[in-house]
Amino acid sequence: MLTEQAVGKVTMEKLVSLCKRRGFIFPSSEIYGSLGATYDYGPLGVELKNNVKKAWWRAVVQERDDMVGLDASILMHPQTWVASGHVQGFADPLVDCKQCRKRWRADHVKGKGCPDCQGELTEPRMFNLMFKTSVGAVEDEATVVYLRPETAQGIFVNFQNVLTSTRKKLPFGIAQIGKSFRNEITTGNFIFRMREFEQMEIEYFVKPGTDEESFKRWVEDRFNWYVNLGIKKENLRLRQHAKDELAHYARDCYDVEYLFPIGWSELEGIANRTDFDLKQHAQHSGKDLSYFDEETKERIIPYVIEPSAGVDRSVLAFLADAYDEEPDKDETRVVLRLHPDLTPVKVAVLPLSRNEKLAPLSREVCGSLRRSWMVQYDDAQSIGRRYRRQDEIGTPFCVTIDFQSLEDRQVTIRERDKMRQIRVPVEALKSTLDAKLNGEAFDVLPPGGKRWLGFES
Amino acid sequence: MLTEQAVGKVTMEKLVSLCKRRGFIFPSSEIYGSLGATYDYGPLGVELKNNVKKAWWRAVVQERDDMVGLDASILMHPQTWVASGHVQGFADPLVDCKQCRKRWRADHVKGKGCPDCQGELTEPRMFNLMFKTSVGAVEDEATVVYLRPETAQGIFVNFQNVLTSTRKKLPFGIAQIGKSFRNEITTGNFIFRMREFEQMEIEYFVKPGTDEESFKRWVEDRFNWYVNLGIKKENLRLRQHAKDELAHYARDCYDVEYLFPIGWSELEGIANRTDFDLKQHAQHSGKDLSYFDEETKERIIPYVIEPSAGVDRSVLAFLADAYDEEPDKDETRVVLRLHPDLTPVKVAVLPLSRNEKLAPLSREVCGSLRRSWMVQYDDAQSIGRRYRRQDEIGTPFCVTIDFQSLEDRQVTIRERDKMRQIRVPVEALKSTLDAKLNGEAFDVLPPGGKRWLGFES
Repeated sequence: MLTEQAVGKVTMEKLVSLCKRRGFIFPSSEIYGSLGATYDYGPLGVELKNNVKKAWWRAVVQERDDMVGLDASILMHPQTWVASGHVQGFADPLVDCKQCRKRWRADHVKGKGCPDCQGELTEPRMFNLMFKTSVGAVEDEATVVYLRPETAQGIFVNFQNVLTSTRKKLPFGIAQIGKSFRNEITTGNFIFRMREFEQMEIEYFVKPGTDEESFKRWVEDRFNWYVNLGIKKENLRLRQHAKDELAHYARDCYDVEYLFPIGWSELEGIANRTDFDLKQHAQHSGKDLSYFDEETKERIIPYVIEPSAGVDRSVLAFLADAYDEEPDKDETRVVLRLHPDLTPVKVAVLPLSRNEKLAPLSREVCGSLRRSWMVQYDDAQSIGRRYRRQDEIGTPFCVTIDFQSLEDRQVTIRERDKMRQIRVPVEALKSTLDAKLNGEAFDVLPPGGKRWLGFES
Repeated sequence: MLTEQAVGKVTMEKLVSLCKRRGFIFPSSEIYGSLGATYDYGPLGVELKNNVKKAWWRAVVQERDDMVGLDASILMHPQTWVASGHVQGFADPLVDCKQCRKRWRADHVKGKGCPDCQGELTEPRMFNLMFKTSVGAVEDEATVVYLRPETAQGIFVNFQNVLTSTRKKLPFGIAQIGKSFRNEITTGNFIFRMREFEQMEIEYFVKPGTDEESFKRWVEDRFNWYVNLGIKKENLRLRQHAKDELAHYARDCYDVEYLFPIGWSELEGIANRTDFDLKQHAQHSGKDLSYFDEETKERIIPYVIEPSAGVDRSVLAFLADAYDEEPDKDETRVVLRLHPDLTPVKVAVLPLSRNEKLAPLSREVCGSLRRSWMVQYDDAQSIGRRYRRQDEIGTPFCVTIDFQSLEDRQVTIRERDKMRQIRVPVEALKSTLDAKLNGEAFDVLPPGGKRWLGFES
């Protein structure tokens, strides 16, 4: 599964191992031998993933006047996928081995015999990647439905409902986060390509003629989102699709690519989908999906810019980019240098030792921070070992309570990156951490929000 | 669909209408005539639903030392559902009409003929409620899998992985939020019973012998969670399951019931599941799912307390409970008296009129609040009408910028509930709202967090 190892990067094996050992990501249903190409997010993974989603939602919905959210269901009316073209065209060419009956993706074995037994292969046939199921108990009336292969169509079918209920004017966009499902033939590379995965998609509706400008802005915005959340610029690149690579409905498309452990691969795609989808749905539903332009007094079909990102791929990129090792005496110090907005745990509260005298103040400190942040309390093993455990999961701050603290009510804050330690009164702890997590340590850029530059020395 | 109208409560029709008109909830794929028993959350609905999930996560994971989160995939190894008993037993008895071939739930037509044509009915047969699909392209190797009918099993199969990676000691719990699917025969009542729905489930692992005490505490905690988030106590009740009503694995079960517009119905169930699930999975997987008790030096199978809540039902309950009407001159003022933690929009920024002189300061105010909260900017129509529009969606605070504001940099805060107005300097606006949203207006209860008592006068 692991191919094209990127030079100088953390290996996929190391990530997989860290993720399982520390509770980020487990193979799904592992006690039964796992279900292929699905993974479960553990206690730290679910926090990291939720933080990625929150950061995206805040950037593309909360902080913008021209965006609203949506959460459409996974099961949709089957006609949706006829209109979108998925029933007809969302398929891979497959070939069967006439000898051993194994099935392969035609483009992977082109011109050769069966990779397993060298037997002769059939002509390619198209295999649809949508999962099917049926709804309703009455067999005659049971409806075949699909698990959505993308969240985008949930936005298009709700276009008029959103327009009417929000009274938005062009240009405006609809953002959605949710699960999608594809019965992929070729899966693998950990959470890079799964059969069940999560998307963060935007459909941004604009007046025709303004689409190219809007497209450029979105490409820039989305690239910067990753940079602002700490991904190193040299590990990101934009790649424009060649004309023969474009989907039939797309006028232009850029991929934001990340240098994954498996090499440069797609993290997000930004496409100019023109008016294709709204026109298709208007035609297939017989409903008016146009927009009344108050300036020209005409009804128009908006053009659509679609920035479409993978939640799981983002998680993988953030993990890979944050992973760092440095020598530490005879051992190796592993540090996840995650942006503090993304770290599963914001603060670890560590009594110097497991001692009944230290416990009450430690618990008090923990309780006072817990309303605001995800906090971990740990009093097992040596303090040095506990620091390393927190470094390994990216916790930006450890707060240590020692015997001196019982006398002066001061505690030590230790920073993940500089390993600098400062001492602050318990009463100033929350505001100090607040400043460090939400501003002080950031370089505020005027338009695009903040960029993470690591903690200052 | 709408039955048993509860006296004195908002009708389901009113809720459905408000939800569609203001963008809380739309029928799914509506332009194609909708898919039965699924709904889409619109721009305000997704914020409300996310806030419900955040409030739950904060209460049961973030603020507790004995809980961690998880996010398992929807598609699981099929053996999971054999072990859990779902393949064998998660079924409803159905009968067919021999004349018109329609299918009915046997317990709904007991002893009678076909409700449609009075034809003779067959003997009941069991119909499994799990949705089926198949994974993998190679037909011989394709695996039948199910869309999970509950999130709980995702927790049980990950029990050992969570235990090992977090080093938690009993008692501790695992919390999960996610979609589940049931091919229900009888659906309806808006988002009360859908085929695709979202659950918030906890599996709390305890030493056998301590389960009854833990069970009681969870029943209390979960009841209080709804009260703390503003549900009126008189609209909530606990109902203990009768012995013959208990699932075979359950030793005890309480429902938290809410007085929905359709009458008293289940909002959440809290069950003592004993060691049934872990034992089943240990047996079916051949894996050791026991826990090493450091005190007794024995390996034990923990007992499990399961508080299982519906996200969509919670949303419906919060909406129904918050809905209020009061006379307002010749009209009716509709107010959603939602707890401020739950309101889709925290602050509306309203220039007194659409005027280019007011716009810059209004935009500045909006921008300064947007980093912290979901904010809505509205400069259309009269200020009175805009207040009403915000009341109707539950926005706790409106900030009005008038011409005086341009001179003294003071703005007006108007409260949803008391309709009281106070004037504050722009520079103090954020901290004032912060205090009102996060403390000042709350009655802080020592153990269980805060209880919402409405804004003080």
